[in-house]
This record gives sequence, C-alpha cells and structure tokens, in this order.
Amino acid sequence: MRYTEKRNVIVGQSGGPTAAINSSLAGVYRTAKDRGYKKVYGMLHGVQGLIEGRYVDLSEHITNGLDSELLKRTPASYLGSCRYKLPEIHENQALYEQIFTILKDLEIDCFIYIGGNDSMDTIKKLSDYAIITGSPIRFVGCPKTIDNDLALTDHTPGYGSAAKYIGTSVKEIIRDGWSMRNSKGQVIIIEIMGRNAGWLTGAAALSKGEDCDGPDAIYMPELDFDVDAFVEKCKNLLQVKNSVVVCVSEGIHTADGKYVMELQDATDFTDAFGHKQLTGTARVLCDIVSREIGCKTRAIELSTLQRAASHCASRVDILEAYEVGGAAMKAADEGDSGKMVTITRLSDDPYQAGTEVKDVHKIANDERLVPREWVNEEGTYVTDEFITYVRPLIQGDVAPIMVDGIPRHLYKPGYQDLL
Amino acid sequence: MRYTEKRNVIVGQSGGPTAAINSSLAGVYRTAKDRGYKKVYGMLHGVQGLIEGRYVDLSEHITNGLDSELLKRTPASYLGSCRYKLPEIHENQALYEQIFTILKDLEIDCFIYIGGNDSMDTIKKLSDYAIITGSPIRFVGCPKTIDNDLALTDHTPGYGSAAKYIGTSVKEIIRDGWSMRNSKGQVIIIEIMGRNAGWLTGAAALSKGEDCDGPDAIYMPELDFDVDAFVEKCKNLLQVKNSVVVCVSEGIHTADGKYVMELQDATDFTDAFGHKQLTGTARVLCDIVSREIGCKTRAIELSTLQRAASHCASRVDILEAYEVGGAAMKAADEGDSGKMVTITRLSDDPYQAGTEVKDVHKIANDERLVPREWVNEEGTYVTDEFITYVRPLIQGDVAPIMVDGIPRHLYKPGYQDLL
Repeated sequence: MRYTEKRNVIVGQSGGPTAAINSSLAGVYRTAKDRGYKKVYGMLHGVQGLIEGRYVDLSEHITNGLDSELLKRTPASYLGSCRYKLPEIHENQALYEQIFTILKDLEIDCFIYIGGNDSMDTIKKLSDYAIITGSPIRFVGCPKTIDNDLALTDHTPGYGSAAKYIGTSVKEIIRDGWSMRNSKGQVIIIEIMGRNAGWLTGAAALSKGEDCDGPDAIYMPELDFDVDAFVEKCKNLLQVKNSVVVCVSEGIHTADGKYVMELQDATDFTDAFGHKQLTGTARVLCDIVSREIGCKTRAIELSTLQRAASHCASRVDILEAYEVGGAAMKAADEGDSGKMVTITRLSDDPYQAGTEVKDVHKIANDERLVPREWVNEEGTYVTDEFITYVRPLIQGDVAPIMVDGIPRHLYKPGYQDLL
Repeated sequence: MRYTEKRNVIVGQSGGPTAAINSSLAGVYRTAKDRGYKKVYGMLHGVQGLIEGRYVDLSEHITNGLDSELLKRTPASYLGSCRYKLPEIHENQALYEQIFTILKDLEIDCFIYIGGNDSMDTIKKLSDYAIITGSPIRFVGCPKTIDNDLALTDHTPGYGSAAKYIGTSVKEIIRDGWSMRNSKGQVIIIEIMGRNAGWLTGAAALSKGEDCDGPDAIYMPELDFDVDAFVEKCKNLLQVKNSVVVCVSEGIHTADGKYVMELQDATDFTDAFGHKQLTGTARVLCDIVSREIGCKTRAIELSTLQRAASHCASRVDILEAYEVGGAAMKAADEGDSGKMVTITRLSDDPYQAGTEVKDVHKIANDERLVPREWVNEEGTYVTDEFITYVRPLIQGDVAPIMVDGIPRHLYKPGYQDLL
C-alpha cells in the first residue's frame, strides 16, 4: 500500500555528534521539500525522544536559505541525540506498536535516521517490523560517524572534518613543540578518539608535509600495543630530536586485551551505560615515559573538540553530508526501505564519489577497521595508501559565518529548552 | 656614540609561544629593511642561544612577500624560544661582556626581544649594562604573551588570537554538550591556561551570544576558589539544565593558597626549572563533582592548542603584532633603549589603538591581573566591561594558506635542524 499523495517525513539523529551531521539534516529537509512532502518533523534525541512524543516541525527551524547555511556550519546534533538500542521485536512488540502508532498519527511516509552502527540497527529493526506488519512507511539510514567504521561505505560523513581538524591541530602542536629546548628533550602524547578503529588517529599523519615531519609515531587500536617497544622508540627518537610527538588512539590495548589506560591506578570511570570512560591513555603513557626516561612530557587529549570543530570543517565532508542526506530522502521517496546510503569512491585523483543504496542488514552492528596493510610493519605509522585514501576527504573549507569575531550557529528562540 | 651608517639588527623570541609572535618577527624584519639596516640576525632560542653563538641571517628565511605572509600565519616561535633569566649584572659581569662581544662582532646597532615579563627583564638588564659601559647598542622590547599580563600596555599581541580560539572552542564544546541527555546530567570542566591571571579564562565568555548561553561559570586565579561553593553551584545548575559547562584557569587555588590540582594525590610534576606542572585542575574538579554529585563529568584541557592555533587567529591581533614589531624596530632605530612598545587603546567602538614606547623598568617583573570589578560579585563570571575590553581584539580572520587541505607554515630546507 502506498499513499497516492505525499504526506510527511520524520528525521532523527543518533549517536555521537559530528561537525557534519547537521549538514545531512539540512540535506534531508531540502530534498523532502523539493519532492513535495508536506511536513518534515525532527525527532528530539532520536528514537528515544520520539517514543516520549518529543519532536518538532523543522520548518520552524529552517525558515530560509540562511538558516540552512547556518545549520550546515553548526556542530553537534541539532535535534539532540541518543544512545539507545531498540530491543529485538519479539522482546517488546508493544514498544514497536507504540512507535508505529506515533508515526501513523503524524502521517509519516518516510523515516530517515542519521547515525552510525547503533542507528543502522534501529533502521533494520523498524523496517523489519514494517514488513511484518505491512506498514507502508519506508525507513532509510543516513551514515554519520567521525569514527569512519561503518561497513560497505568508502567513508562516513563527519570523518573528513574530524580528520582535517586532527591534521591541523597536530601540526600546530608539533610546531609548538619545536619552540623550546629541554635538557632531556620532551615527549608529547596526543590522544585521539577511536575505541576500536584507528581512522581518526591515522589522520594525524595529514600534518606531514614539506613544512612538517608529522608525528613521530602513530599507534592504533587495530594492533596490540607493546609498552616496552614504545618506550624504546621514544628513547631512540630523543637521541635525534628534542621534541617527540606520538599520537595514540584512546582504545589502544596490550596483547592481553587490557586498555593502556587501565595500566595505572587511575579512577576507573564507567558511564551510565556501563561503557568504560577511556580518557587518560595519553596521561598513563606520559607517566610511563616520565618514569622510564625522565624527560619532560605533555599529554594532550583532543577530546570532544575533534568532533565539534565546525570552524575547521572540510568542504568535501560538509557537501557530501548534505548530498547523502538528500540521497537518503530520495531513496525513501522512491520506495526503498531497510537501506542505508553509502558513498562509493570512483577516483582518488581527481577525487570523485557517488552515492549508492545498500541493505542495512549487511551494515548494522559491523565495524570497518583500518586494513593491516595500511599500517607499516612495525605498527607505528600509516602507509601512503592510507594518506591517499584520507587526503581527498579534507579538501576545501567552509568559511564560518562570523558574528562579532565568533562563528555563528543555528539557534531559534527557545530552541535550547527543547533539548 | 652613534654610528653614522646603519649596520645590523638582531632579534630574538623568548617565553611561551603564541599564534602572533612570528607576525611581530615579520614586522621587525620588514621595518629594519625599510629603514636601511644591512643584516637582520635572528638569535636561535633567544638570548640563551645567542650566548652559545647560535643565530641565523633572517634574509635566508624571509626571502619574499609570500614568506612574510607565511611567517605571520606560522604558530610558535620561529626562531625557537627559551625560558632564561639573565643573572644580575653584578653577579656575573663576564656573561654580559660575552654577550656584548658577540653583539659587537656582529656589528649590531639594535637588539629587539619579543616576549613577556622575563624577556623585558632581559631588555632591562642589557640596556642597563649598555649605559654602564657606554655601548651604543639600543635594546627594545616587543610585547608578546597569550597571558595578557604585561604592565602599562592595554593588551599584548598573542592574547587576541588565543581569546578567539578559546571563545570559538568553548562555544563548540557547549553545543556538543547539548546533544546528549544524561539521567543525572553532565558537568564539563574546561581548563584554560593562566597561572596568576584570568584574562584567557575570562575570554571563554566570548562564546556567549544570541545562539549560545556561554559557560555557566568562570573561575579565575585572581580570586580564591571555594570548592564547596563550586559543588553547590554545579548542583543548582543541574536542576535547571542537563549540560553544565564550567571554565577554570589552571592556576585557581583555595584560600590557603593551595592549587586545586594539588587537592588530589596526582603525580606531582615539576619541570626542569622547578615550576610545578599545573595540568590536571579540571580533572581534579571532575573527580570531586563525580564523587559529590554522581553525574557524568568530562575534563577538557585546551592545552598548547590555545597558544598555537594559527588556523583560528584574530586579524586584529596578527596585524597589531606586526605593527608592534615594526614600532619596536622604529624606536630602536630612532635611539630608544631600555624601552618596550605598548599598545594604547583610543576607542572601544570603533576600536582604535596606537603604539607608545615606555620605560621597561616600569614593566619588567610586574604582572597585570584582571581588575576585581571586571568579575561579578560572586566571583563566577566576567562582567560586560571585560567583554567590551576583549571583543575588539578577536575581530577578523587571517585565512590560512591552505595546501592539500592543511594550513601551510613557513619552513626552509634544513630549518628544523637549527632548533
């Protein structure tokens, strides 16, 4: 059953925010309007908020072209996000009925969800339920994650901007490190996000160029981390240079599976969802270097800055995020359901890419890691292939709209009370 | 005694690097050449390197206009820096003789030193020694410090760019914090540089505008920090909002003079010069909030990023740094010695400022703190006067020269081996 007249769309954001996720939201909105849908609702805090009946009419937020441009330049999840995994259908059918009742009441034809792995699991389950119950609503996923770990897509929107920020910031930190001489040298350890995948940490190598050596070592979570070899490497580097910069993923672990941050009696944070809070890897390594080598050390965590730095966004990334949002809406409009939009790279140089639509069942709950052959044999740096892969994704800038010296973001009166 | 024909100039950089210190270097170079000096030497790692006979001919580094533009956009101290305080003249006259012999051999007429308090102490001592010994060499200081704590100047080059980066990054972190709802809320604590002065931390309030509340509290080292009142404030804020953002100076301390970072059994770092390493204030406060309130917390240190982020520099700051460098060179050329260039503000709106030349004896070893009346009565936020003061200093951008998606810095073959 399909309605002859187009009715409404609902869109949500889920998982960790990025600098590009709102550009996808702008893309979904624009394509929905262009294709004749009446209302575009935005669920607040993803499907979790939807279940509580919390949503907005996006036309009150994107009122003109300038709003759309501001939205593309606004970091974090404009609609609010959640980390919420739907139960299996057979575990709580009532919940699914509740969601579909809400969607029916809102006269929804298309449900677009912008997010990562967990979000694609949501699309999978809701589209499965639609098939079981004969609902005509189409569910399509729009990829988003700075972690770049979604399966079946060349890369994910959000990654390019985070990579550009990391490359830029690491380069500035390296340069800063050259300024001072220390009698025993110094080791700067930069901690970058990534529990299981090293895509972000590898992007630190983008700092390398004619005017910068890049970091001296890069350690990613795909490979076991050897503390002794690391200390030895730092020692050797300090023989030839005064300032050593090492980049590590937050999730690096030793061969026995223990996170590096657990190697010390640090306060053991666990968040509300039972996830271990992995901040402190760089600090633990600094303590070890300080003890073993006795040189000056500095631990730097890029923290949430790396996912929120819209002021340093990649043009390729922001435009792709917008296109992918539009492609998700187009797919849903044309009848696809249980699908996610993917990006297919046609060429590295000149960079060309297009979108496809793939079965979400093959994507959800899978993790794409950095291939072993894109890391050098010693496991301490990315190869040229890695750089060839990531370089096109950081090209071009999106000039922030500056007001009084600070970038302006999209904000409507009372907006914050919604979240 | 003055030489009838102009000979050479030497310039050095000292103290903590900034995003604008190299713009002053470019300004010194340009004015020295414009005024007919033959060679412009750059001492490597400041006066400490000079004593070791380490310097370069800057014309090999700034070979054309593009080099000069790149230098303005290059963070950290291009010539290398030092933290070196000259002994009193009577303590080690031989050292002064050694320095003046080097200067004589290089046929130096003018000695320009770009730096903060310690650097002005160097200018003071060297110019005193010149007077005592009848040397014709002129010594002039060029102000630089992100800390903005130099006396007798409205502000210091370097501060505006750091303030712009802090305002921008804090705004992005606040926005990121809105994305997620947590059952008990979350407290994000951002640690900003500043041992004794709160100029940088106060700049976090620049994030406040029509589209952002700004941080919920700002604690500066000029006032005693009350841990109980801080916890109480966080508790109250969590009653009305889900995500609370607090900005603190690294140097905040309790009424008994104890640094907040010392409130916990953290590894007690002391650097080679006996300075306590003040990283960890935010983390200590997060531990306290976590224990007392039980909510999610996140500690973010802006670390060296705040002084090295050339990609987010203020145009006003970079241009003023360039002008101040030129003004220092002009003053020395016209016979001033034992002086520092200062910036005098003529008007807030429209912002107008000019340079003056003041006695370095009145500047060296003094510290300019944020006036008490520019902090609210509770001691938890800056006043509108503070914002009126800082806002003009962050205006305008200096577009980085992008190569392959990353900002390009000035680098000559073999440059790094010099440092």
